[in-house]
Amino acid sequence: MNTINVIEKFKLFSETWTPKIISELNGQYVKLAKVKDEFVWHSHENEDELFMVFKGTLYMHFRDRVETLREGEMIVVPKGVEHNPRTNGEEVWVLLFEPKETAHTGNVDHERTVRNQKWI
Amino acid sequence: MNTINVIEKFKLFSETWTPKIISELNGQYVKLAKVKDEFVWHSHENEDELFMVFKGTLYMHFRDRVETLREGEMIVVPKGVEHNPRTNGEEVWVLLFEPKETAHTGNVDHERTVRNQKWI
Repeated sequence: MNTINVIEKFKLFSETWTPKIISELNGQYVKLAKVKDEFVWHSHENEDELFMVFKGTLYMHFRDRVETLREGEMIVVPKGVEHNPRTNGEEVWVLLFEPKETAHTGNVDHERTVRNQKWI
Repeated sequence: MNTINVIEKFKLFSETWTPKIISELNGQYVKLAKVKDEFVWHSHENEDELFMVFKGTLYMHFRDRVETLREGEMIVVPKGVEHNPRTNGEEVWVLLFEPKETAHTGNVDHERTVRNQKWI
């Protein structure tokens, strides 16, 4: 039950596409991720997922359109909706909010899938 | 499933201590509140509550100490823990994350209790 400075937490790691857990509440995790270039198309069968951008511009690709998220902007991707977050070559800092059981690559088992995500 | 600019949403209302809903996921609401001066001592029996400061400085009073939250800082207040958010005379903008059924005054029925909180 301590105050968390989000930007300071981002400074504690450098790997991309490797979400770190910073807090939990009501069966959900708050995570931070640094992302760059393209991830992988996936969906989450049972979990909605919130993305909030703290640095840079995130392009959330859906099958039918792209949403652009700048610093201070957020989006909720509902369960079952295929998405693929991308950036335009820059490193983007994103806060995630999702149920504890959420795998970040969702229904896809990919070389980028990180299990046992760590707390920072 | 649209992009939400958090600061722009804050600009849509002026009342203090009247949380507005901006999004939902996994049975939880994302809310915004403008707060000023003192609220009311309360706790939530079954719900953890996240506070993230977007503007100003929030003083989260607990019975045994005070946590200071500046812009970009967050805290999770676990269920059952009495708390009372206060500000030092300034208006502070706070994002909340909590289960849909959470009453903002928790276990306390107070003149400030707002039922049927509205979407913006």
